[in-house]
Amino acid sequence: MNSDLSGKIIVGIAGLGTVGAGVVKILEKHGALIAARSGREIEIGGVSARDRNRDRGVDLTSYRWFDNAVDMAAKNSGINLIVELIGGSDGPALALAREALGNGIGFVTANKALIAMHGKELAALAEKTGAPLRFEAAVAGGIPIIKALREGLVGNDVTAVRGILNGTCNYILTRMEREGLAFDDVLADAQRLGYAEADPTFDIDGIDTAHKTAILASLAFGVEPDMENLPTEGIRNIAPVDIEYAKELGYRIKLLGVAQHTDEGVETRVHPAMVPISAPLANVMNATNAVVVDGDFVGQTVYEGAGAGQGPTASAVMADIVDVARGQGGPRLGVPADQLKTAVPVPVSKHKGTYYLRLRVEDRHGVMADITKILAEEKVSIESMLQRGRASDGGVYIIMTTHMVVEASVAAALNRFTELECVLETPAMLRIEA
Amino acid sequence: MNSDLSGKIIVGIAGLGTVGAGVVKILEKHGALIAARSGREIEIGGVSARDRNRDRGVDLTSYRWFDNAVDMAAKNSGINLIVELIGGSDGPALALAREALGNGIGFVTANKALIAMHGKELAALAEKTGAPLRFEAAVAGGIPIIKALREGLVGNDVTAVRGILNGTCNYILTRMEREGLAFDDVLADAQRLGYAEADPTFDIDGIDTAHKTAILASLAFGVEPDMENLPTEGIRNIAPVDIEYAKELGYRIKLLGVAQHTDEGVETRVHPAMVPISAPLANVMNATNAVVVDGDFVGQTVYEGAGAGQGPTASAVMADIVDVARGQGGPRLGVPADQLKTAVPVPVSKHKGTYYLRLRVEDRHGVMADITKILAEEKVSIESMLQRGRASDGGVYIIMTTHMVVEASVAAALNRFTELECVLETPAMLRIEA
Repeated sequence: MNSDLSGKIIVGIAGLGTVGAGVVKILEKHGALIAARSGREIEIGGVSARDRNRDRGVDLTSYRWFDNAVDMAAKNSGINLIVELIGGSDGPALALAREALGNGIGFVTANKALIAMHGKELAALAEKTGAPLRFEAAVAGGIPIIKALREGLVGNDVTAVRGILNGTCNYILTRMEREGLAFDDVLADAQRLGYAEADPTFDIDGIDTAHKTAILASLAFGVEPDMENLPTEGIRNIAPVDIEYAKELGYRIKLLGVAQHTDEGVETRVHPAMVPISAPLANVMNATNAVVVDGDFVGQTVYEGAGAGQGPTASAVMADIVDVARGQGGPRLGVPADQLKTAVPVPVSKHKGTYYLRLRVEDRHGVMADITKILAEEKVSIESMLQRGRASDGGVYIIMTTHMVVEASVAAALNRFTELECVLETPAMLRIEA
Repeated sequence: MNSDLSGKIIVGIAGLGTVGAGVVKILEKHGALIAARSGREIEIGGVSARDRNRDRGVDLTSYRWFDNAVDMAAKNSGINLIVELIGGSDGPALALAREALGNGIGFVTANKALIAMHGKELAALAEKTGAPLRFEAAVAGGIPIIKALREGLVGNDVTAVRGILNGTCNYILTRMEREGLAFDDVLADAQRLGYAEADPTFDIDGIDTAHKTAILASLAFGVEPDMENLPTEGIRNIAPVDIEYAKELGYRIKLLGVAQHTDEGVETRVHPAMVPISAPLANVMNATNAVVVDGDFVGQTVYEGAGAGQGPTASAVMADIVDVARGQGGPRLGVPADQLKTAVPVPVSKHKGTYYLRLRVEDRHGVMADITKILAEEKVSIESMLQRGRASDGGVYIIMTTHMVVEASVAAALNRFTELECVLETPAMLRIEA
């Protein structure tokens, strides 16, 4: 433990958006309680943001202002713990992290992109200088899932982590299901209501979920965070018709981050999936997040709560600050940075699972024969099939779920379907995940 | 941190039942992994139990045997961390705890009764000598709920903790509901299958849940564990008819431990409750445990997993051992023992809530008038009422749910019902809890 942290914790907050203001609110409301719980005083020694004059709902005039956040991490700044809420995997956030950790100053962050892209480098630097490095708020907001994986389940070989990690996507999917609306309509409304950003790309294309999944995989399996081998698909292409069929077949469509550790290696992926209605993740609605962890001794544990927002995210940041104050030790990424393994990635083509397939085809004889012939040749065995009357834009729908099969076979069959004249649009495929 | 813990962790395991054998199994299977995660070696320096020759499914011959567990906690034993799995609030477990903590030796326990009854004394002793004291396995088995309350949600004023904390009771209630069986029949079968002890008193009368609730309240609210003011009712009197009506009204009956912190004080209680089917706790089935925590910044978080059994409980013990190895600090009970408040108990008579009431009455005119007159006089306002045809043992059932009301009023009405000639048996009352 860094000797700078033996007395008061003097926090410098970089980034004063909604979460930064939330951290100030907690410290102002619960200062005495948190001091008792921490065993030492925690005070704000500096704040920094782009715009000094914006109204943030908290009075910041009594705190020392830094125009440049990096100056808070200088050796003589008097600050011994940086809270980074700037965001972004590079630029000022990365510069600040390097400066703080290089100087032995503690670093607490809510920045998933930063940890997913530079986690190993930063952990190694922190271990070299003895600086604390914590990032509970980077995944699943207020849910203490980083702590659960890094500490609570530490006695387990974790074999799988699955989660609903993006509140915006889950909110959109929930409303599509409940109100029968199309993706674009719900997105527009979500933007109006503040549930989705003006530029929603990071959320709805799954990138945010991918960052979080990379971090979870790293902690769960002792591997470097790896964004290179993380196939990522968002929810833009989810059609109301698939949501309807999901319901009929006993599933709900959820955007999942999945990380599995098998004998073959580490399989990580982000995509919408059909989740059986009886599974814990199927019943997580609106902007709520949830994570399911499978460990060899503990079995399955489930964690659920608000994944974003001022209070929940600030709560997670506060947990990290108190951990630092209490002198919580242990390797930053679960094992020492130099012992993190480079994961052997398992390509999604090797994924073994069950699948939902939807084809829109011409309504004439011989079509089913063509389709089932391809399935047989590609060794895709069908568990259930339903054919429904005319689709709104012509043709009929054929809906199938498969038995356990390797994804390459499904992909091959889908490719061949696309070439059939009787197939009227690109087939839809969704993985089924419990 | 105790200087004895700077090198290897040498564990002494006291009590070699199913959990003790599980801890040995984890250390043998994951020794290298856990050393990497802990930053130091963890080895077993001694074991102790009543019977040396029992087959425990693990080979203990290579470990040093102690006939008397307390000897493992002697200053010169070479052991620096005791894992206590003996059980019981007094006797050998308490003697061992006092010896270990008094000698500055770390103490990890799965013993809920010990912490519920002597938590403050032991925390004070541990703080005096600098010895670690951890008890993750004491509540909700493999779910890291102690860590969540003590650390993950540390930035919050927690207002309520509710949980399904006893797997035996939840298993029995699940089977009563699914199979329409009576309590005694399911209990007998659960005993045969190993889901219930030969003497099931601690489980089914709610005492086990009460111990856990007292610990959760202590951590959540910063108060001394208090078993004196914890009204406790088990599941012996749950009738199949109430389970049926629960279903019909959109509830499930669950045995809950509840701890609430209001302006009036701390309200803790253990009792079967009607839980709305849409609430997270209603969908926790079989022997699974779950805990719901409400915090002022984080909102509601939910934790679910196996609450008992070899693997899950040993997983929690292992988390504590690694925490000690990593030098995790902080006050043992969330705040320093001398800052724990004595809770102002709120008697259950002052509980404000909604209620389910069932009366078996004579099937004749005037009965309903008698009942509604009493309800009006006691200011109990009825939300819904149903009357059903003949009960199997004569009379008819009147089922009511109330609007929000203080419990003293409900109790007064129930007392007066009992005196009515037309009321054929003691009325049933269940609190409704979200």
